[in-house]
Amino acid sequence: MTASPPSADRAPAPDVDVVVVGAGLSGLTAAHRLRQFGATVAVFEAAPRVGGRVSSAEVAGVHVDLGGTFVGPGQDRILALADEVGVSRYRTYAAGRNVIRWRGDHRRYRGTVPPVGASLLDVGRIQLTLDRLARTVPRGNPAAAPQAANLDAESLGSWLRRSHASPAARELIAIAGRTTWGCEPDEISFLHALHYIHQAGGLSSMLDTEGGAQEEHFVEGSHAIAVRLADALGAALRVSAPVRRIETAAQGVRVSTADETVTARAVVVAVPPALRGRIDFAPALPPSHAQMAQRWPAGVLSKAYAVYERPFWRDHDLSGQGLSDTGPVFITFDAGPAHAGAPGVLLGFIGGVYAREWDELAPAERAARALSSFADLFGPRALDAIGFIDQRWGAEPWVGGGPTAAPGPGAVVPYAGALAAPVGSILWAGTETADRWTGFMDGAVRAGERAALQARGILSSSSTDHEQTGVVR
Amino acid sequence: MTASPPSADRAPAPDVDVVVVGAGLSGLTAAHRLRQFGATVAVFEAAPRVGGRVSSAEVAGVHVDLGGTFVGPGQDRILALADEVGVSRYRTYAAGRNVIRWRGDHRRYRGTVPPVGASLLDVGRIQLTLDRLARTVPRGNPAAAPQAANLDAESLGSWLRRSHASPAARELIAIAGRTTWGCEPDEISFLHALHYIHQAGGLSSMLDTEGGAQEEHFVEGSHAIAVRLADALGAALRVSAPVRRIETAAQGVRVSTADETVTARAVVVAVPPALRGRIDFAPALPPSHAQMAQRWPAGVLSKAYAVYERPFWRDHDLSGQGLSDTGPVFITFDAGPAHAGAPGVLLGFIGGVYAREWDELAPAERAARALSSFADLFGPRALDAIGFIDQRWGAEPWVGGGPTAAPGPGAVVPYAGALAAPVGSILWAGTETADRWTGFMDGAVRAGERAALQARGILSSSSTDHEQTGVVR
Repeated sequence: MTASPPSADRAPAPDVDVVVVGAGLSGLTAAHRLRQFGATVAVFEAAPRVGGRVSSAEVAGVHVDLGGTFVGPGQDRILALADEVGVSRYRTYAAGRNVIRWRGDHRRYRGTVPPVGASLLDVGRIQLTLDRLARTVPRGNPAAAPQAANLDAESLGSWLRRSHASPAARELIAIAGRTTWGCEPDEISFLHALHYIHQAGGLSSMLDTEGGAQEEHFVEGSHAIAVRLADALGAALRVSAPVRRIETAAQGVRVSTADETVTARAVVVAVPPALRGRIDFAPALPPSHAQMAQRWPAGVLSKAYAVYERPFWRDHDLSGQGLSDTGPVFITFDAGPAHAGAPGVLLGFIGGVYAREWDELAPAERAARALSSFADLFGPRALDAIGFIDQRWGAEPWVGGGPTAAPGPGAVVPYAGALAAPVGSILWAGTETADRWTGFMDGAVRAGERAALQARGILSSSSTDHEQTGVVR
Repeated sequence: MTASPPSADRAPAPDVDVVVVGAGLSGLTAAHRLRQFGATVAVFEAAPRVGGRVSSAEVAGVHVDLGGTFVGPGQDRILALADEVGVSRYRTYAAGRNVIRWRGDHRRYRGTVPPVGASLLDVGRIQLTLDRLARTVPRGNPAAAPQAANLDAESLGSWLRRSHASPAARELIAIAGRTTWGCEPDEISFLHALHYIHQAGGLSSMLDTEGGAQEEHFVEGSHAIAVRLADALGAALRVSAPVRRIETAAQGVRVSTADETVTARAVVVAVPPALRGRIDFAPALPPSHAQMAQRWPAGVLSKAYAVYERPFWRDHDLSGQGLSDTGPVFITFDAGPAHAGAPGVLLGFIGGVYAREWDELAPAERAARALSSFADLFGPRALDAIGFIDQRWGAEPWVGGGPTAAPGPGAVVPYAGALAAPVGSILWAGTETADRWTGFMDGAVRAGERAALQARGILSSSSTDHEQTGVVR
């Protein structure tokens, strides 16, 4: 698209305008927008499939989302992209009462705040304090928060202890943290937790179903968005093609897999932060970038789906949403299809300390334990599944874990700046680099769109430099 | 060496008995011992030079150790190896008084405990408590310590605050931590800090010059040990040859670089934990191994050497050992040659928070700041250096940082077991996998020797399986 008449005093034209590394939602969005801008792209994906942390499967005839699933209000970019590619959505089933197993007790409740007894006031206090502190952390620039170094020096867990949070409040936050970051409260920088909460619009927006980030999911599945973007790329997309090396040259970049080398004016690296470390950069990345890749590990989250003849819990005025203070499954949703008469689907999360044990178990043992957790919450009928599947994100070599990076104490102030800062013609995408909804599908799309705009900037300046007349402006 | 008569009912003999990945001190030791056992080896090193975190340079005609430098009592394996390859050692200059700049004040003192005023008693209390707790952590198995999960849940920094350590005690521990782990106290798991201290024989043994781990250094330089081991390997060693992929097959392993594939009965991976993540393993490593590689980042430590016409500080009864509560250089040693009349050499460490800033500076700025730090401690004559060199370990792509891995809170109990546990025929070396003197050159040698013994075990069992009559037993 930026092809221009040959000229003796200029380097040969690159093979494409922009190479995108990683065909997750973020990289695919970047490539899609760049093509809309009139740029040519090549997209390399290490895994044999596209989607990254968005994936799907069919179990007993029912589609399930193995990775990113839900969307909610304020997640405008993923919603717009889904509309654009024709993937529709429906409301997460949330009618009736929720279930909680707590301290051996089994209760039903309505709304979002579980009945944890006398601790309820304390849960409210902790939530309010977290929300208030979260708003002090500037989105996209956590190091600029007041007292940033102190907030980064401790973990969420250490802050909870220091704030004399009740055991129930600590445990509820731990459950939220396992689902959100795939780690225990002691593993995550308190500054990062606050920044994340702020980006998601506060704890309620982050955790709620109705009015929150779990409000809707996609009829065709979230993976359909990735697949449609990938299909449109055609031959510009290579899967099973891990990028080994990115060299920066005077005129742009050279990106190499084991089999081919492609030159471009810019590259968008859209992989989780830890996986940046798998690529050889020449010249080497600045130390802060290289060190960041060692200090923003992916969390550990697994998901389990059980499919039933019908959503029997709905008959008992239960929403399918459950919470448990024991594992392995500690939080559940009704993830069943929208139409009446459809099979029932329970989705359970296994994260943090539970996921580490889970990920090493044999498949049959994992199924037995998950169904047992479902039965603890919804009764013995939950054992009669007609289908079961789980997904261990921590066992995926080209993803590294899920749902998102969980930096430990001290890793945010010195290194958050390296997440999205361009290094010459090397640009960065992936949900961790977003300044809104980091960790969510919406963050992935936002980051991809931002990287596409940055790449367009490089293309238009190099067009000017070379007096080209391409359509890229 | 294990060559055996061809047989129709057996897989083809592998190219070598054992492949070693990484020609640092640990990998080179493994290869050296395996050859002594009669095994054939191939050693791949990603960088253009051998030595890993041991390196050297000449400045103004003087040899300096850019990486691992000192050795001390109890470090029996590095001492034995050095003797074996004919590298000799001499005592670190420590005569006279040490210098401390503290709270704007400048003092001289003898011995190892700096005069930090009324806080001195508290420093002693903290040190005693650390030593006592360290002894409760079993060497090589920190997860088995009493209260291991609680010790792992917090950082060294959080423990210091919770123990109401005085600011002086906290700062002295921070200085020790920056030198030892290349990080701030808030970044490192308290359990790991204790385990490390225990492995090093206690804080005094770890930090002291006389009678401690800084007691001696090598006349020919520590790097000479690596070079002599490498020279003996001849064509069995390839440098500039990053290993990309390790496949486990029925009969052993296939290890591939961009240019060649070598088959072997076993592989010893002797790279820092974070760099394990750069290799594709097929089948994928167990989740705990893969996740560990994301959670044991290398610290950030840089070293600066200034060379002077003569060691002028010695004239003033100064040892060259200095301590400062400001950076960038916060601890110094006289690293000069043993013989009288030789030039003077000051070695300064820049670690943790100081190293992050330092590593991004231009060379001239780094030199100016280091000399200024030396002058703060030893007077303006320290500005008159005839030579200067520094080494930024955090900027080395095939090392990733230094001096050793610094796992954050929560990364030890679930993941320390993955450091040294074999995965089939894949064995692990590197100083982080040692059960004594982890983080030191001695730990690297111990780990290499342990891996060589493990590999010998695999060779002798596969010899038996195949009725071979090789010399390996």
